[in-house]
Amino acid sequence: MATATLLLSCPDQKGLVATMADWVYRHDGNIVHADQHTDASEAVFFQRIEFELEGFDLDRTEIVPALSPLLERFAMRCDVRFSDERPKVAVLVSKQAHCMYDLLARWRMGELEAEIPLVISNHPDHADVAAHFDVEFAHLPVTPESRIEQESAMLALLAEHDIDLVVLARYMQVLSAGFVAKYPNRIINIHHSFLPAFIGSKPYHRAAERGVKLIGATAHYATSDLDEGPIIEQDVIRTSHRDSAEDLVRRGRDMEKVCLARAVKWHVEDRILVYNNKTVVFD
Amino acid sequence: MATATLLLSCPDQKGLVATMADWVYRHDGNIVHADQHTDASEAVFFQRIEFELEGFDLDRTEIVPALSPLLERFAMRCDVRFSDERPKVAVLVSKQAHCMYDLLARWRMGELEAEIPLVISNHPDHADVAAHFDVEFAHLPVTPESRIEQESAMLALLAEHDIDLVVLARYMQVLSAGFVAKYPNRIINIHHSFLPAFIGSKPYHRAAERGVKLIGATAHYATSDLDEGPIIEQDVIRTSHRDSAEDLVRRGRDMEKVCLARAVKWHVEDRILVYNNKTVVFD
Amino acid sequence: MATATLLLSCPDQKGLVATMADWVYRHDGNIVHADQHTDASEAVFFQRIEFELEGFDLDRTEIVPALSPLLERFAMRCDVRFSDERPKVAVLVSKQAHCMYDLLARWRMGELEAEIPLVISNHPDHADVAAHFDVEFAHLPVTPESRIEQESAMLALLAEHDIDLVVLARYMQVLSAGFVAKYPNRIINIHHSFLPAFIGSKPYHRAAERGVKLIGATAHYATSDLDEGPIIEQDVIRTSHRDSAEDLVRRGRDMEKVCLARAVKWHVEDRILVYNNKTVVFD
Amino acid sequence: MATATLLLSCPDQKGLVATMADWVYRHDGNIVHADQHTDASEAVFFQRIEFELEGFDLDRTEIVPALSPLLERFAMRCDVRFSDERPKVAVLVSKQAHCMYDLLARWRMGELEAEIPLVISNHPDHADVAAHFDVEFAHLPVTPESRIEQESAMLALLAEHDIDLVVLARYMQVLSAGFVAKYPNRIINIHHSFLPAFIGSKPYHRAAERGVKLIGATAHYATSDLDEGPIIEQDVIRTSHRDSAEDLVRRGRDMEKVCLARAVKWHVEDRILVYNNKTVVFD
Repeated sequence: MATATLLLSCPDQKGLVATMADWVYRHDGNIVHADQHTDASEAVFFQRIEFELEGFDLDRTEIVPALSPLLERFAMRCDVRFSDERPKVAVLVSKQAHCMYDLLARWRMGELEAEIPLVISNHPDHADVAAHFDVEFAHLPVTPESRIEQESAMLALLAEHDIDLVVLARYMQVLSAGFVAKYPNRIINIHHSFLPAFIGSKPYHRAAERGVKLIGATAHYATSDLDEGPIIEQDVIRTSHRDSAEDLVRRGRDMEKVCLARAVKWHVEDRILVYNNKTVVFD
Repeated sequence: MATATLLLSCPDQKGLVATMADWVYRHDGNIVHADQHTDASEAVFFQRIEFELEGFDLDRTEIVPALSPLLERFAMRCDVRFSDERPKVAVLVSKQAHCMYDLLARWRMGELEAEIPLVISNHPDHADVAAHFDVEFAHLPVTPESRIEQESAMLALLAEHDIDLVVLARYMQVLSAGFVAKYPNRIINIHHSFLPAFIGSKPYHRAAERGVKLIGATAHYATSDLDEGPIIEQDVIRTSHRDSAEDLVRRGRDMEKVCLARAVKWHVEDRILVYNNKTVVFD
Repeated sequence: MATATLLLSCPDQKGLVATMADWVYRHDGNIVHADQHTDASEAVFFQRIEFELEGFDLDRTEIVPALSPLLERFAMRCDVRFSDERPKVAVLVSKQAHCMYDLLARWRMGELEAEIPLVISNHPDHADVAAHFDVEFAHLPVTPESRIEQESAMLALLAEHDIDLVVLARYMQVLSAGFVAKYPNRIINIHHSFLPAFIGSKPYHRAAERGVKLIGATAHYATSDLDEGPIIEQDVIRTSHRDSAEDLVRRGRDMEKVCLARAVKWHVEDRILVYNNKTVVFD
Repeated sequence: MATATLLLSCPDQKGLVATMADWVYRHDGNIVHADQHTDASEAVFFQRIEFELEGFDLDRTEIVPALSPLLERFAMRCDVRFSDERPKVAVLVSKQAHCMYDLLARWRMGELEAEIPLVISNHPDHADVAAHFDVEFAHLPVTPESRIEQESAMLALLAEHDIDLVVLARYMQVLSAGFVAKYPNRIINIHHSFLPAFIGSKPYHRAAERGVKLIGATAHYATSDLDEGPIIEQDVIRTSHRDSAEDLVRRGRDMEKVCLARAVKWHVEDRILVYNNKTVVFD
């Protein structure tokens, strides 16, 4: 059954929960999930309310107008989305295929409430994977000189497919600030360290060199500051002196794919709010 | 600042969140924590609301009478507790001291919102530990023949100290059904396996024999069915073929104490609701 | 570079490590990995020695004859395998594809030192997956009445492909004792609970019913006693009252595939010794 | 039964395992634990051999002289220690008592193969804790001006008690390079982050600010570069947007104490080798 989800944030004040719950109730909404959070130090209130559209006495297009007096009164920001309008996701990949395989297999098995119409790669290697999942594959090679044109071509493809979310599934190219600015909080990257440790390139090799006893992976929204965006999810596994840098690369893949998939799932289910370069995840 | 906490449960129905939030709001309550859960398969609603007493327009004694129309209307069960009326905890212990030390040290460091006036043991070994923490120590030895009298003596001590929660901190005696019935959902035990695996005695030895790759600990409310009560918290650590049963006993202690401490903390902060032999933990 | 691996076990006695290391050394072997374990309570010694074939002064066929005096002297059991003679693996699957996808994608990416020439399923659903990975797909439906013939057909296929290891990648049929006996310690199953908890069917549903706070997965060798075989690897994830049985099914998949993949990898790299229904894993 | 432990390291070369095992064997040693590791990229070999002293045909004082031809031949470094000559440990603490309590309670329960004759603190608060465990307590307050004298007083006390290992159990003062140099690889610190993330002060506050989803703790040997020493052990726990910096401080304690205790245990059991600012831990 289709649901509507409201993602709200505003300065904290008394009566917010009561008012919002009452608003849904008065319109005959049946709440299937509600969660809220107050950041006490910043005095900001966050809420996610998901209610069934069946029986609700407003049409989809009437919801925002009906809410607007409340939004003004509380200086509230509100996103409204509908579960049956599935976001469109593009997967960007380079040579390593594990995250791409994992996302596409989950999608095929019905785990992801999204559409994946497009895979873009700077290498031709995995065209057959996209074909197997019936997804369009675009091979857009890139050199330092051609980066601007390649990004333009990517942006055109993303626009053409009406993409809502870009997933960097071990896409090993740095995106320009201009590209990132086109999709604020709508590009998810997987970095292969527990950020803020080992920002930058070759984190597993640096982890091996430093002799850490844990390695990690971090799914985060891409921002113009590399590896500095809002963190959505992190995971770690234990290592020991027995693991070479190559072992870490191999063993880390399991974390990377699971961590990235969780972040993508939460995003497409509208469970994430971003503020102050941090995330509230209503999982 | 003192707070009031409502722990609510009732058959699920529309308008519950709105009504309860509105009730607190109309009485000028400032909600510092609110969480709710609906068990969809059982159609039961659970909620925990914690609000500041300062500024609330009802006295403590007026809260339940003021709530009663709502409780009746929704067939709602409600517990009301106040953060500055700290529950009294008795710790029962045998020869192994790690859980007792851990709880008492946390209490001394201000981690537990409770009083611990009493330690009871069937062995005399740890009287000095209780003394160090300024807690009364009662040595009540027990034999199969003397169990009834020993339990009577324990009950008398618990009553005398007005104990709200009994913590079995590796207390190696089985309590009678009669004893347990006196403190429903108010006796927390730590079992040294990930229940329902290895119910009964010597779980680490049986884990070693079975060759499992994980060992666990389970904090649960004691019921008359041994190791079958509502589970509050569980934890595991990895083991390997290198761990003998004795290694498991030693290594398991770290889980046991952390797992038990979490359960006790949640209980004394009124974060646990029990239904159908399961727990809802609003952590 | 190709290596030879010796997997040894024998009654514990002085001088074993010295003798075996000396034997490799005298034949100019360069040891790249050596690990040993003594089960003190059973007085059994286990060792894994992997050495480079280049420079070793014995041919492959000469190794066992050259070892035999030592094997006799120590009453030692010894398996010898060569890294460039990759074991052949068959994957058995039903409707759920996550473990199959995961294994095949790992294999394609070079993570598994094995060949996977064959997928068998009692359903036709995933023929295209096998095709994508260039693996033969055999659809062998089964009913209670046809089980014996279906198993015969499977055995014929396994023999035809010279299969060394059978992986039950969420294959939802019980195999007969006769079938299992054909592949002792060469059938790996993934069970979706932390055994010995929730032996049998629908473990996630029973986990939800019992209200556990962790769910698990267990990779084990199949024996004629269902879910009682030697455990190779286990993993768990946290759950809460918010997870329905269906949530557990979905969330558990990530554990299942990672846990199974680890077990398969260790097996094909000759890292597992079985004794007393337990495993020694030299990882 | 008393054992001898050899901790060896040398340039990698053929025949090391055979030679060392043979040496123990020829002297009638019964090996109870042997583990080795080769760092392939650095071509360094490490080994830990523990054998029973009973039946061994050399006296304790004869071991090093008897080994010296081998040590020369292989350019091998070797430490020899005896399990019944328990290292002496001093615990340094400030206001937070959880690590101190944990270590002292483990020691009382027989978990640590060490003596703890001395607690030093820059605050007087926990004198009674030391007294409870029958350990001498030295209160040595420190100001920026008095640091040199305070460190001199500490060094005198450590020398007087013949201390082998100094444990910084949340000791919140920076030690001078001169102090640290007196105890190379014999001072263990617990840092409350997963290093190299959040080097320096207030890591939990910075973790909350950065919005990480995991917090960690790192036990490491102290070097003159703050938080840059060889890492012995690390652990993490999950956090969420709901955890304030204060919550992280409280929740982190459980990791800190367990992580530090593991490192101390491995050190006093001679399981740690240091090279290239990294550790090999034969656990």
